Parts: sequence; C-alpha cells; structure tokens
Amino acid sequence: MRVFVAGASGRVGTLLTQDLVKDGNEVVAASRHPEQFAGQDHVMAVTLDLHASEEQLAEDLRGSDAVYFVAGSRGKDLLQTDAFGAVKLMMAAENVGIKRFILLSSIFADEPSKWDDPNLRNITNYNIAKFFADQWLMTRTNLDYTILQPCNLMEEPATGKVSFGVTHSTTNSIADVAAVLAAVLDKPNTFHKIIMMSNGETPIDEAVAEV
Amino acid sequence: MRVFVAGASGRVGTLLTQDLVKDGNEVVAASRHPEQFAGQDHVMAVTLDLHASEEQLAEDLRGSDAVYFVAGSRGKDLLQTDAFGAVKLMMAAENVGIKRFILLSSIFADEPSKWDDPNLRNITNYNIAKFFADQWLMTRTNLDYTILQPCNLMEEPATGKVSFGVTHSTTNSIADVAAVLAAVLDKPNTFHKIIMMSNGETPIDEAVAEV
Repeated sequence: MRVFVAGASGRVGTLLTQDLVKDGNEVVAASRHPEQFAGQDHVMAVTLDLHASEEQLAEDLRGSDAVYFVAGSRGKDLLQTDAFGAVKLMMAAENVGIKRFILLSSIFADEPSKWDDPNLRNITNYNIAKFFADQWLMTRTNLDYTILQPCNLMEEPATGKVSFGVTHSTTNSIADVAAVLAAVLDKPNTFHKIIMMSNGETPIDEAVAEV
Repeated sequence: MRVFVAGASGRVGTLLTQDLVKDGNEVVAASRHPEQFAGQDHVMAVTLDLHASEEQLAEDLRGSDAVYFVAGSRGKDLLQTDAFGAVKLMMAAENVGIKRFILLSSIFADEPSKWDDPNLRNITNYNIAKFFADQWLMTRTNLDYTILQPCNLMEEPATGKVSFGVTHSTTNSIADVAAVLAAVLDKPNTFHKIIMMSNGETPIDEAVAEV
C-alpha cells in the first residue's frame, strides 16, 4: 500500500515511517525536513506545507491509498497546523478519493470535562485544537477514520504492550504509539473508532484485534 | 426580551448593549469588566469567564431569552475564547433551552479560499477560530442562529447604512455593526443565515428586512 504520512519527520512520524516500511508499504514521507529520509528504501520524501491550500494538499496526496496525520506544532501554530492543517488534509483526501485516514490525537481530546486532569491542565489550547480536528473527522467527512488518543508521549523504549482502557491520563512510549498507528492501517475493525491508549499489558496486535 | 451579551464590555458589545436597551430589552451584560455598566438602567452586569465549564456558562445563561456572542480576545486567546468559548456558549444555550443565538464572526470566515484577500492575509489564525465557531453553530446545533460577518471594524461614526452583498473585504463602522446585530434579534427571516456586511447605501432596517 502507498501510505502518506503528514509529519513524517516528527518523533512519532519517524518511527511510524520505519514501521510502515517494515510492514511492506511504500511511504510518502511528508514533512518540512525531507532531507532526513535521504537514501531510505521504500520511502519517498516530499516537502509538506500545512499552510498551503486544500488544492495543493490534494495534489500532494494524489496516488496514495491511505493518509496519516501525525504532524504537530508543539504549541507554536496550533490553529494553522494541528487544527486547520488536519482539517484541510481531510478535505483533500476526500477530494482525491482516498478513504482511509488515521489521525493522531490526544487522550480525552473529545471530553472537555476531563481537561482538568493534572496531566492535561496545562495543554488546554492543544486539546481544543485536537478537539476541532477530531470532531471534523468524525462528523464532517465520510472517511474510514481511526483516531488514536495516547497519553503523554515519552521518549522511552518500546514495550510492545498497551491498554486500550484508559481512566486517567498516564504516559506512552512514542515507539508504542507508532506501532499501534502502523498496526491499525488495514484493520477494518478500527474504522470509525476512537482508540484511547495507555501503557498496559496486552500485546499490541492482540489489543488492536479486539478493538 | 431578556438578552445575554457575551463580551458586552468590548467595542461592539458596548454599543450593542445600548442599542438593545433602546429597543426595549433587558440586557445581561456579561464581560470581564462588569463595573463598566454601573448605574445603567435595564442592564444587569455580570462577570463572564469564557474559560469556565459549559455547566457554569449554562448557569450564567439561565433566564435569558436570546444570546449574543460578541466577545473576542484580539488574537491573544483565540482557541479558548473566540473558538471554544463560543462553542461552549452554544452548548450551554441549548442545554438551558434558549433557541436564539447571534454570533459576530468575520467576513469570509467560512470561505478559506478567500483568506489571501489583502485585508485578511494577516488574520489567518483569527479566521480559523471564527471558521470553527461558525461551522459548529451551523452544523452541530439546533439553534435559531444568525451569523454576522462584517468587514474590518473601524472606530468611525455610524452611517445607518450597509450593503449585504460583499465581494471583497472593506471596512465597517463598529456602530453600524452593533446596529445590525440589534436589528436582527427578533427577525425570523435572519434565522439560519450568514449575513455578510460592508459599508453601503441601504438603510439598516430595510437591508435586514430583505435578508
């Protein structure tokens, strides 16, 4: 499958790109830093500008079979990148006939009443940006979406294990988040679902199969 | 009618409050500066915190018959005030059974392809915040809404005249914007409409009657 990854040079995107190639896909690694992917087999690096028009993004997407949005501005450009950049990419995907769209979101982004959780209290702006992106995907598109909502991202080794029953915000290894994103790609049981994830004891493939 | 004005102490809200009282309404003037309204007849000043929960905002709204959202952070808090603050107020209005909701937006906020207009090029973040608020009101609520989209707000004298046919962004006197907002309050022909407005030659009452 040819898979477009928006935000491929980020912390999640870099590992996700590796995982997708390992699974036999061709990856269009779209980011502001395409040089990062020089010489990688099965990776076509392209420059992505999420400030571009929906029409330009549609051109960028043409020829791909599925889209990941794992880009993030780390709080610096939430409206144009995290919120509206994601929405434009959804519109662009629909316009070129791509059905599969996987969005990296954040735990409880669609449950504002939980945003005073101690781990979330300082990221309200981020949660609002993710709220609008998630809500658009669920209610304004006909995409076969999956929304992954991990807890706080940590630069820790992969555990290969997760829990999809989350009662309060904890942490996740970035490598595990990338592995779950890659694992849901072609799994119809994950379509039209929000998956909340935290560290846990269930092997990733098993947890994904049970969604 | 008892009318709740969110953002009553702002440039538009101050004049809107006066116009609504002149038209025979009781105004709940909700803002961060309730002291501004001390001693004004037919005005009940209350403190408004748009960072509050939807439940708190519902309490604030209880007893009112209609709601205006004319609050704005002037670019400083777009996600929490202009976008999500407006959305929470819509949710709160529905929860206490208020049907009438009038939202001050901005010209072409729902037409991203026009955001490179010379007058709009530098306010993309603002337009995105307004886009999400407008879209929520139109597609996610059952409110009897009117969305007013004026051009750039200018501190100029009222002209009493407008045009509702806008081809490119120009300017509007803030006093005229307030007058149009007050005029649509009880006009069912303006329900479920976006009204784009610029300076023009049609008397406001006549223009509103023709919407």
